[in-house]
Amino acid sequence: MEYPSKAVQKAVESFKSLPGIGNKTAVRLVLHLLKQNSDSLKQFELAVEGLRTEVKYCQTCFNLSDHERCAICSSQNRDQGKICVVQDVRDVLAIESTGQFTGAYHVLGGVISPMEGVGPDDLKIAQLVDRVKNGNVSEIIFALSATMEGDTTIFYISKQLKEYQVQITTIAKGIAIGGELEFVDEITLGRSLLSRIPFDV
Amino acid sequence: MEYPSKAVQKAVESFKSLPGIGNKTAVRLVLHLLKQNSDSLKQFELAVEGLRTEVKYCQTCFNLSDHERCAICSSQNRDQGKICVVQDVRDVLAIESTGQFTGAYHVLGGVISPMEGVGPDDLKIAQLVDRVKNGNVSEIIFALSATMEGDTTIFYISKQLKEYQVQITTIAKGIAIGGELEFVDEITLGRSLLSRIPFDV
Repeated sequence: MEYPSKAVQKAVESFKSLPGIGNKTAVRLVLHLLKQNSDSLKQFELAVEGLRTEVKYCQTCFNLSDHERCAICSSQNRDQGKICVVQDVRDVLAIESTGQFTGAYHVLGGVISPMEGVGPDDLKIAQLVDRVKNGNVSEIIFALSATMEGDTTIFYISKQLKEYQVQITTIAKGIAIGGELEFVDEITLGRSLLSRIPFDV
Repeated sequence: MEYPSKAVQKAVESFKSLPGIGNKTAVRLVLHLLKQNSDSLKQFELAVEGLRTEVKYCQTCFNLSDHERCAICSSQNRDQGKICVVQDVRDVLAIESTGQFTGAYHVLGGVISPMEGVGPDDLKIAQLVDRVKNGNVSEIIFALSATMEGDTTIFYISKQLKEYQVQITTIAKGIAIGGELEFVDEITLGRSLLSRIPFDV
């Protein structure tokens, strides 16, 4: 399509490069921005610029951070001895939003996947082993996807951690809260039967 | 939700202010941008900056433009005597993408809508009347939405143009190409029967 303005065209193409945004949505977003006043457009620019210039990765847990060490890793209120191992930054946000975890994190940056050419050296596994080796880590909690790749990654890391005094756990797999039993797939249902837990009255 | 980085939080909030983008999508877009290299992030910034600094509105037709006069209004290949009146810039893009129109445009910036407090003075109606008064305009083609507000706007402008020698037309309303008759609403179907056209063999 021929756009009436080169600047508009450039903006539409930039927005189109974002995931899940096609041509029509990109045009809608750009026209929305054009309707804003100069100040809020400037705010938007600064926010995007901030992503490039201000955001770092925590050198301990590889979570997003404004500093060399993220707020969670440097907090006195978090149990630094419990490390929850996750695939990426989004999982940290998801777990934080539950408000159920008071330990620290370790962001692997992916899972081992020979199909996609991701090996152990592409992930922050050595850094996790170092944390266990150096510090007072009592528990490693794996919160990875319940897939073949996730399980492979847990198995690989667990073997590396075998020689250290550290408890290894994974988050529970079973039926979702509020889920109707008849719609649960049989593998999950079978597994949730095998991993049944005592019910205390 | 507590974000690990203030810069990330600011960016998520900026994206959330866009239409149709909620919290989860905003987080996804921001994390996608963070994965890009510094160069393409800079490109994105420049594209948004361009919207603020480079985009103007054509002083003739009020379409988006990089200059005081847009490419369509200054083109020798377009019939400047035919003016297609549309509600906003998106409609110009839609009509241009059909490739069926070789005239010029006039972007009203909305339609008359007492419910939303939009009166004739909020739109570029006086400027349209001026164009007809000054220039060699032979035809005004209304391409507005087939709503009460669109019809009111057409009626209001037509009355203003009555004293000038100009043909006034509206785009055809009827069943959509490829549309199955049984799914067409009865008002459209009734209207398309009333406005039936001769079929030449």
